Amino acid sequence: MPEAKKIAVVGFGNIGSGVVKALREKRVAGLDLVKVIDIDLERKRPVRIPRKMLSPHWQDAVNDPKIDIIVELIGGIEPARTIISRAMEKGKDIVTANKMLLAHQGQTIFSLASTLGRRVGFRASFVGCHSLIHEFQTAGSAAKKFRRIHAILNGTSNYILSTMTRDGKTFDEALKEAQASGLAEADPSDDIDGVDTANKIRILLNLITNSYQTVPDFQIEGIRNVTPQDIQYAGELGYAIKLVGVIEQVGDSIAVGVHPALLPQTSLLGSLQGAYNGTELEDEYGVISGLVAPGAGVYPTTDAVIKDLVDIAEGRPLPMPSSADPLNLGSTQMAERRYYLRFSVLNQAGVLARICDIFWKHNISIAGVIQKEPVSSKFVPVVMTTYMAKEKDMQDAIKAVDRLAVAKAATRLIRILSANT
Amino acid sequence: MPEAKKIAVVGFGNIGSGVVKALREKRVAGLDLVKVIDIDLERKRPVRIPRKMLSPHWQDAVNDPKIDIIVELIGGIEPARTIISRAMEKGKDIVTANKMLLAHQGQTIFSLASTLGRRVGFRASFVGCHSLIHEFQTAGSAAKKFRRIHAILNGTSNYILSTMTRDGKTFDEALKEAQASGLAEADPSDDIDGVDTANKIRILLNLITNSYQTVPDFQIEGIRNVTPQDIQYAGELGYAIKLVGVIEQVGDSIAVGVHPALLPQTSLLGSLQGAYNGTELEDEYGVISGLVAPGAGVYPTTDAVIKDLVDIAEGRPLPMPSSADPLNLGSTQMAERRYYLRFSVLNQAGVLARICDIFWKHNISIAGVIQKEPVSSKFVPVVMTTYMAKEKDMQDAIKAVDRLAVAKAATRLIRILSANT
Repeated sequence: MPEAKKIAVVGFGNIGSGVVKALREKRVAGLDLVKVIDIDLERKRPVRIPRKMLSPHWQDAVNDPKIDIIVELIGGIEPARTIISRAMEKGKDIVTANKMLLAHQGQTIFSLASTLGRRVGFRASFVGCHSLIHEFQTAGSAAKKFRRIHAILNGTSNYILSTMTRDGKTFDEALKEAQASGLAEADPSDDIDGVDTANKIRILLNLITNSYQTVPDFQIEGIRNVTPQDIQYAGELGYAIKLVGVIEQVGDSIAVGVHPALLPQTSLLGSLQGAYNGTELEDEYGVISGLVAPGAGVYPTTDAVIKDLVDIAEGRPLPMPSSADPLNLGSTQMAERRYYLRFSVLNQAGVLARICDIFWKHNISIAGVIQKEPVSSKFVPVVMTTYMAKEKDMQDAIKAVDRLAVAKAATRLIRILSANT
Repeated sequence: MPEAKKIAVVGFGNIGSGVVKALREKRVAGLDLVKVIDIDLERKRPVRIPRKMLSPHWQDAVNDPKIDIIVELIGGIEPARTIISRAMEKGKDIVTANKMLLAHQGQTIFSLASTLGRRVGFRASFVGCHSLIHEFQTAGSAAKKFRRIHAILNGTSNYILSTMTRDGKTFDEALKEAQASGLAEADPSDDIDGVDTANKIRILLNLITNSYQTVPDFQIEGIRNVTPQDIQYAGELGYAIKLVGVIEQVGDSIAVGVHPALLPQTSLLGSLQGAYNGTELEDEYGVISGLVAPGAGVYPTTDAVIKDLVDIAEGRPLPMPSSADPLNLGSTQMAERRYYLRFSVLNQAGVLARICDIFWKHNISIAGVIQKEPVSSKFVPVVMTTYMAKEKDMQDAIKAVDRLAVAKAATRLIRILSANT
């Protein structure tokens, strides 16, 4: 049995308290907590530790030669970046839950780790899908390639969409409910506007390509504009609406996006309820694997931190992007998929025919139409689903439809992501 | 870079050909195929290898001091057990896909491996759920315990049940269709009678408890008696019928079983279609993780073999039961769950009241009842679901119901396994 690894936890908030509690009370073999850093040492915590282990200065952890591993749990870019970089330069390994830092400064962190031969464990930054990607990566780049990843990576958004679907609530009502039950923050924009999902997609893309290059900006659309009407139409067609992060091979390059999508109700992702995360990976042979797991929360995040610590203590390699190769990202414009469209058009003879004509000219075939008899309004909602079509053709066609005099509001487009599971 | 590991593949059938092809054509770093053994060297294979690599004698692989790893792909108990044991005694590591051997002689193999310090990779023996269990195990026994595992581990059965559900087919019709499309064997009994699922459950139990003690016999019920009628009633209640392997904590011991079960249609396992496998694990804190993956087939099995080889080559520890501790298995009689019951009773006044009375005396509360108006028959099917009840109480109650003069056939009981995902 090698000597126990000496650990400092930097950031004694909710997750920090969970990690400290686990290390103190579970006494995991090979892990020895020796220092806890936080600028606020007066606040009450759910775990008691000796005063002499505490310090308000992160330098006390980073400069202590006895410490082997720094657990960074303060979040945000600075001082987290400085703490992690200095600690690696001092020969320490790192465990972090810092999505923001890895999504935007991953290059700094991972290139330094590669240069210095240090390990960075970051399971906790995307707890919900880590093991699936890890398992896929194990076979090494020589063995196989992925074809696509579809992932639901934000529990708050999924909870809101689940509530809207189950109870027929509007987005605003469901958001208020999520806030009341503590599942959405007072300022929920990172969650509902897709920013958090996009951060995880950036980390995922780095991990799966093994390149630590910063992912350039890509299209991000959140769930503010998802309406009960669209959820109901989707349901009638056998689909659920979910916020999905997509990484896919398009030709020779990789396209990335975050947006609401229609998923079959009985698929792994389409059936995902509440605050869970789900990831579906299709490999180059069309074999699909999927993982469902909690994506956040004190306990799952704590658990992920402990797993990384155990892996480091037992000498297991941690998956970490280690190459400076370019990411070879392409546009989603050439991606082919199916679409859900809701037109807001005047209730006039010949409207449907004109839409069909525009679609035909853009190489788009219609798979299904729902047009209900209008009750009182002059406007009639027409819903269509298409067969596979190129993103570019679809967007051109919608522009043409929205230019028609009978179009009374912008056409609502939601992508359909079909899976085989 | 350490020297490449020299590998012998024993068993050049479908999976063996897949592994040989992958090692020859993909040229995975660190893996060097040097020998292929099969008693039949004349049959045509989808991959060409030099004649001098081939031998009909497994001893040529086991006794060759240059060979580091034996990949055993012949299946069955003997000579696989002898080959693996001899190879470990000669200092070689093992990769195997042999479910039958590990389920029934795992104790021999794993105790020898522990004694000799050899590694046995067996991802390929339960490809569909390996990574979930591996991830759970990583934190070590000090960190956490499982509460229950529900798993769909047999693709053939799941395909048959999916077909019955989708097309309203009988079991016999769906089985014939599966046989015609190559998804069920001419003698399908291992798959449809739950034997294959039970073998995987045995291996899973060894892995998750870290004990290599042989799992004693437990209750196994296959899918031959699942009727379109039960599938339809289950559907009306929001459930799908699946063949499920169950490992659960009941009090201080672990209960194990394989049987058909009702699962919510929108749950991870309830929505699993076709030949896929799915595993759901709930830990001691109630956190649920789930994995969906192909459970068989040349490609996924080959992939699992390659992953084990890469792990061995790169010096990663492989999960392997390594303790002789007793398994502490208990009876399912004290397990509490919900039940679906279909009674075949005479259409007489007061029958429902008598059933309810029997249930009341056995501490069983009724959650729902479906009794449709009889069309022409004297017998009326009555379907009930219960709230949580002890297995023993439930079975006693059914015995009492089946003794009633109005009972015209044995009551059909199917367990309901509810999940939160």
